Amino acid sequence: MSDPKLHPALEPLSFLLGTWLGDGKGDYPTVEPFAYREQIDFSESGRPFLFYVQKTWDPETGHPLHSEAGYLRPVAEHQVELIIAQPTGITEILAGAVTGASVHLDSTSVGVSPTAKEVSTVRRTLVVRGDTLSYQLDMAAVGQDLQFHLAAELERQ
Amino acid sequence: MSDPKLHPALEPLSFLLGTWLGDGKGDYPTVEPFAYREQIDFSESGRPFLFYVQKTWDPETGHPLHSEAGYLRPVAEHQVELIIAQPTGITEILAGAVTGASVHLDSTSVGVSPTAKEVSTVRRTLVVRGDTLSYQLDMAAVGQDLQFHLAAELERQ
Repeated sequence: MSDPKLHPALEPLSFLLGTWLGDGKGDYPTVEPFAYREQIDFSESGRPFLFYVQKTWDPETGHPLHSEAGYLRPVAEHQVELIIAQPTGITEILAGAVTGASVHLDSTSVGVSPTAKEVSTVRRTLVVRGDTLSYQLDMAAVGQDLQFHLAAELERQ
Repeated sequence: MSDPKLHPALEPLSFLLGTWLGDGKGDYPTVEPFAYREQIDFSESGRPFLFYVQKTWDPETGHPLHSEAGYLRPVAEHQVELIIAQPTGITEILAGAVTGASVHLDSTSVGVSPTAKEVSTVRRTLVVRGDTLSYQLDMAAVGQDLQFHLAAELERQ
């Protein structure tokens, strides 16, 4: 069911592969600042995309918070798309560039279910330095302009 | 990180929980009819949604074909939404009803990445009878009207 060799199209993204564990902080005009613990997994199965799944939880109580899943797919040299589903009723399609061990992505389409909160724009940046993955997520939602929402640092497990 | 008890909102959907394995057939005016082998997993982590992940592969060669992942979330009594990401660059948001051990869903929003094929409408029906999960997927895409695309029968593992 899977090819033991990495698909050649994934070589520029291989720095993301694996399991990452760390801590993040969130803020937004409509919520109180919050901290979270997070696990991210990037895996592959011989096809030309990475499977992405993450979850966060309260660092003090262990209570689960956010989760999301999707696929990171190379579409041209140094160009990728990130396709995400969230249990909050949101989908994101983002497009962007890979530069070294960094990925910069801007949403081209955000889907909102009939009962979900409005989200209009998302910007995601992921950077790997050594065994540390850092990301930042900016968001325009619920009538607010595009601005900081989440940032985290995770260590390769 | 997870609650050992099923969230009460998931009780009407508990018939889906578990791992399912079986065979399917696909057809569409733009492709040759095809057969596939498929595994579907519905799991939960104490939150009010099911995590859904599936993959298909060629029954003869074992070569991987489609995959998708997402979340099935109850939003009101007998009402659910299904939020899906696909590595083909497509997102689906579907809304519908749970009747007994059946779920009928129609897309309310389909997202298409800048490089993906056009998909405009998706209809999904899942039915569990005993230890058999059957589904059918109808689709309007690449200029074709809404029509049959996929059907499969899977056995509970």
